[in-house]
Amino acid sequence: MSLEGRTGNMQDPLVLFMPSGKRGRFPVGTTVLDAARQLGVYVESVCGGRATCGRCQVEVQEGNFAKHQIVSSNDHISPIGPKELRYAEKRTIPAGRRLSCSATIQGDLVIDVPPDTVVNAQVVRKAAIDILIERNPAVQLCYVEVDEPDMHKPLGDLDRMKVMLDRDWGFDNLLVSQHLIPQVQGILRKGNWGVTAAIHRDLEASRPNIIALWPGLHNEAYGIACDIGSTTIAMHLVSLLSGRVVASSGMQNPQIRFGEDLMSRVSYVMMNADGREALTKAVRDAVTELTAKVCAMGGVDPDNVLDAVIVGNPIMHHLFLGIDPTELGQAPFALAVSGAVHTWADDLGIGINHGARIYLLPCIAGHVGADAAGATLAEGPHRQDRMMLLVDVGTNAEIVLGNRERLVAASSPTGPAFEGAEISSGQRAAPGAIERVRIDRDTLEPRFRIIGSEKWSDEDGFAEDAEKLGITGICGSAIIEVVAEMFLAGIISEDGVVDGAMAARSTRIVEQGRTYAYLLHEGAQRILVTQNDVRAIQLAKAALYAGIRLLMEKQDVEKVDAIRFAGAFGSFIDPKYAMVLGLIPDCDLTEVKAVGNAAGTGALMALLNRDYRREIEQTVRRIEKIETALEPHFQQLFVNAMALPNKVDPFPLLSQAVDLPARAQGTDGGDGSPRRRSREGRRGRS
Amino acid sequence: MSLEGRTGNMQDPLVLFMPSGKRGRFPVGTTVLDAARQLGVYVESVCGGRATCGRCQVEVQEGNFAKHQIVSSNDHISPIGPKELRYAEKRTIPAGRRLSCSATIQGDLVIDVPPDTVVNAQVVRKAAIDILIERNPAVQLCYVEVDEPDMHKPLGDLDRMKVMLDRDWGFDNLLVSQHLIPQVQGILRKGNWGVTAAIHRDLEASRPNIIALWPGLHNEAYGIACDIGSTTIAMHLVSLLSGRVVASSGMQNPQIRFGEDLMSRVSYVMMNADGREALTKAVRDAVTELTAKVCAMGGVDPDNVLDAVIVGNPIMHHLFLGIDPTELGQAPFALAVSGAVHTWADDLGIGINHGARIYLLPCIAGHVGADAAGATLAEGPHRQDRMMLLVDVGTNAEIVLGNRERLVAASSPTGPAFEGAEISSGQRAAPGAIERVRIDRDTLEPRFRIIGSEKWSDEDGFAEDAEKLGITGICGSAIIEVVAEMFLAGIISEDGVVDGAMAARSTRIVEQGRTYAYLLHEGAQRILVTQNDVRAIQLAKAALYAGIRLLMEKQDVEKVDAIRFAGAFGSFIDPKYAMVLGLIPDCDLTEVKAVGNAAGTGALMALLNRDYRREIEQTVRRIEKIETALEPHFQQLFVNAMALPNKVDPFPLLSQAVDLPARAQGTDGGDGSPRRRSREGRRGRS
Repeated sequence: MSLEGRTGNMQDPLVLFMPSGKRGRFPVGTTVLDAARQLGVYVESVCGGRATCGRCQVEVQEGNFAKHQIVSSNDHISPIGPKELRYAEKRTIPAGRRLSCSATIQGDLVIDVPPDTVVNAQVVRKAAIDILIERNPAVQLCYVEVDEPDMHKPLGDLDRMKVMLDRDWGFDNLLVSQHLIPQVQGILRKGNWGVTAAIHRDLEASRPNIIALWPGLHNEAYGIACDIGSTTIAMHLVSLLSGRVVASSGMQNPQIRFGEDLMSRVSYVMMNADGREALTKAVRDAVTELTAKVCAMGGVDPDNVLDAVIVGNPIMHHLFLGIDPTELGQAPFALAVSGAVHTWADDLGIGINHGARIYLLPCIAGHVGADAAGATLAEGPHRQDRMMLLVDVGTNAEIVLGNRERLVAASSPTGPAFEGAEISSGQRAAPGAIERVRIDRDTLEPRFRIIGSEKWSDEDGFAEDAEKLGITGICGSAIIEVVAEMFLAGIISEDGVVDGAMAARSTRIVEQGRTYAYLLHEGAQRILVTQNDVRAIQLAKAALYAGIRLLMEKQDVEKVDAIRFAGAFGSFIDPKYAMVLGLIPDCDLTEVKAVGNAAGTGALMALLNRDYRREIEQTVRRIEKIETALEPHFQQLFVNAMALPNKVDPFPLLSQAVDLPARAQGTDGGDGSPRRRSREGRRGRS
Repeated sequence: MSLEGRTGNMQDPLVLFMPSGKRGRFPVGTTVLDAARQLGVYVESVCGGRATCGRCQVEVQEGNFAKHQIVSSNDHISPIGPKELRYAEKRTIPAGRRLSCSATIQGDLVIDVPPDTVVNAQVVRKAAIDILIERNPAVQLCYVEVDEPDMHKPLGDLDRMKVMLDRDWGFDNLLVSQHLIPQVQGILRKGNWGVTAAIHRDLEASRPNIIALWPGLHNEAYGIACDIGSTTIAMHLVSLLSGRVVASSGMQNPQIRFGEDLMSRVSYVMMNADGREALTKAVRDAVTELTAKVCAMGGVDPDNVLDAVIVGNPIMHHLFLGIDPTELGQAPFALAVSGAVHTWADDLGIGINHGARIYLLPCIAGHVGADAAGATLAEGPHRQDRMMLLVDVGTNAEIVLGNRERLVAASSPTGPAFEGAEISSGQRAAPGAIERVRIDRDTLEPRFRIIGSEKWSDEDGFAEDAEKLGITGICGSAIIEVVAEMFLAGIISEDGVVDGAMAARSTRIVEQGRTYAYLLHEGAQRILVTQNDVRAIQLAKAALYAGIRLLMEKQDVEKVDAIRFAGAFGSFIDPKYAMVLGLIPDCDLTEVKAVGNAAGTGALMALLNRDYRREIEQTVRRIEKIETALEPHFQQLFVNAMALPNKVDPFPLLSQAVDLPARAQGTDGGDGSPRRRSREGRRGRS
């Protein structure tokens, strides 16, 4: 929390704004709104101090806080005046609140800027971390009262409106969106010469632009933050005036009908003359549909949506913009555009206000997209001293590692195994799919849960649920878990071999030609975890881990201080199992967190505060991009990472939390330390 | 011609650029192009000094011109190098010419920047005045060679192109038109990483914008300058690289089918729900059609048209932009927008390059439009010490009066009489219409010419032409002439009364009830100039003259130094007759000029040099707008102006050039000065 001072005349009253803690001295008679603006405390106001919009409400405490006492006297703020009374008659002002445009400073004050109306709106997140998003949106609503036409001064309606936007709001060089030009005259007359203009001013070097107009006072402005994933499109609808998330929703990316994974969609574009157009239309239609949906959920007129921030992986990003993604499917994986893109909603047609803008976060590299940039913005490794690892696993894993000093990024070709593809009983996360697995260390009997049921398979009532849903396969997150549990139960060795000798102990170990498999479920469908399945997971995890190790080598660190798992995969897997399998490096488990759709959170931040746009643009420019394919060392790292957990890296922090099987002799010191317990030892304890 | 100096090291060679006269000292080895740029001499270059575009050709003279001698030695300029040779092999360079990007300064030089290639292109005008338009168009072509994609530095194609546009051309903060984003990657590859970008940078305060892209070196950029008149739409197609007018054409404004004059079109909009849309579509379609026509005439691909400048009266201006003009039809005649409008060709759909821009000059007032602004820019009263009167006559006369110090403007409701409406035998200018008239002072017999024939009515062969064409009516310009000739022949008095007593002298004077008329032609159609016709002309000319006098009063001047008649009306009437009738104030006849479509010339200037845009924007802001309807004195001026010539104002300069009938006794001093010759006296002389 930064405490900015403003040294006025020492006789002037001292005003402290909370929660920002900004403070300064102002002459008696200064409005609270003016004081807030001078200190850079963002208090919304649409009506320009006319006490009609009610957006600038604050809670006033008073007193001589220099001595840390709040004296309950009433003479430090001006009494409620006629303008405030008029507003309070029409709409209610909660007790203790004042309109900051009308209330003036009469003595020392503590002002609470309440989060519900306007400022410093806290975005509620599923995951643990709360981010305080100070609002500074790219779109601002400005109400003005325009002079009526005058034959003596034949300035046009638009021109007279600009004069007032300059005088009242300080915009001295406004451009105006073409589609508004024919509407200005009608809107001004309908509003009886009062009009609210939406001003977009994202690019500091560019001129601010009038993008929308309404007759009279218009008090609603919304934005959407959208993460276009290859599987799921997620969207938040947010009030730009209060920062409140009004509605959130998601839908399947309809491009899936052209190909499940990214590369099959690129192939579709390459093989079909109108492939690119079809994929672009599909994703834009979906964004349009989802926008309509969140607007309906929030009771918001889509015409009041004035800004949009989009993130997505490079292929989604390119297809949304109408760019052929073919180049991204082959070396050198050239992005058509990597920098942030500023464009118009109308050009892309997503069904919001005609003048609305769209901002796409920059892409980091050919396989590390605007989604990774969004996650970086949300989790903020660049704002920390700690060495933070940020991982978003999909068909490619996008990896960012670094701190305030230096950031490196890479993508690693994990393949689709983590998503359940290439796995014999793998399937999408859907009702009936196994999502959690535990294996008894002694009996090797499994228990599991399926999506759609609250019960474990050994609990009463599970059979009924299973009857209803079926037990159809293993979803991505459970594959990690079952292989990790097999490892922890000693069914597979550090090298990933299913131990045939175990077949003598349990009928769960079944022979399949020259290899063995683990029978997870015997029913309508026989669900096995085969040797090939284990190998597929090993390959995928080795790719991810090798990518991470490569970045750790670039950063010259042997450990990371924090790990953030972004994305749907990260939300469903248990970080512990990810570490047991060696997807991620050793770390204090309390510092390993699934952060959900961090990319979407980053989009939300960029939507609510344009400073975050500059922050991520600058950050992406300084991220060092590592192309794994060009690193000769990567192959060795990959081979090293095949073992469970990795042969070359000890996981001391993990082994404090989890009973790992003993390491194969010869690959470690075998020093007999407490963490190196034998299988027998563990068995003996259980 | 400004002579700007650049004081370099006195040992350095001195270089003089002609015709601008700009000079400076530059170190040996400086390219001529660099020297030109440092002095602000505009030399085009598309290829960025690669000696491939050939746009930067100059003629090199050499010598010690400090002593005003040009020494014919060859060592003051570098010898022709390999790059120039390569260009000369592929395309010819005329003898004596060099590519200024390759030739370097070795000693004192005189450099001629030839008008045909590039610079200071002189626009040929029908009328007498030549305007030297120094080119500084809003659109510039920039060729760059872009680095190929590199996995180590995964900057996007667009981003790497921007790097080069910054490095080679100094554009460090480019925006890019959305429609180009999907095209960048294909264009770069097609051009083998060489690309020509069209950069639009009109608004100094705004960021320059990439509006078009071509693979490889693209050497063509055009613009259109268009004057949308209520009757005629006129257009020039110009090369933005050479300044050459490639083609000019015009067509009838198809809005005529909705109403002949402006007010009837406004009525159409008011009476029909889709009236505004229909009129907007009509004018935009016409501009599109005319653009296609001039492009076809000039052999220019419309996709190479990158900029457009439009002028028009306020109603045409509003309808073209899609603005309802109803407000302009009633007090307070409020313009929806008066300032210059920057917009996109795509939004208005006129069939040029998708990224092309459109610039509309500012409107001066509700009845004084962007056409008057264009005429002002072309004729430049604001650049002069002389008091210049600029008149554009239509249904409304747009009047600007002033000089460097101060400008005033007004419109005056002349009505449609000057255009042949409200005149008994009036008609549009079309084959068969009488366009020139002379009346014999003694016999009162007329002779005339009709449109479509080269012969006067008393010449051999006229009868055959008349047989073919018919003699159908009197066009606007001839109405002025016939009434003026009637006045000069004594048929009508100073008060405008057709003298019935003349009927005794000539059968040309015919009785019509209680008034008399002049029989101009007896044939299939009987063409009369009636008392009502004379009254209509008197009313129209009084309105015009009263408007002018009002502005003269505002300027506190009794005479004007120069008069410019702009527009079609001005092109066809003889300024002498206009003055005889008292449409315009007394002036030296050699200073009264018809300047044709000055509005279109102004548009052309603004197209070729964006500095003219700033000039007219600033000028229009300081023009004082006078609304005749609000001036209590205007009625008196109007009444005073009814007489022929005006009762209150002597016309000493006119009477030196034309035998005016004697003034009615009692309205002047009757001082017997030489200009006051009696009718008898003149008759005696003839």
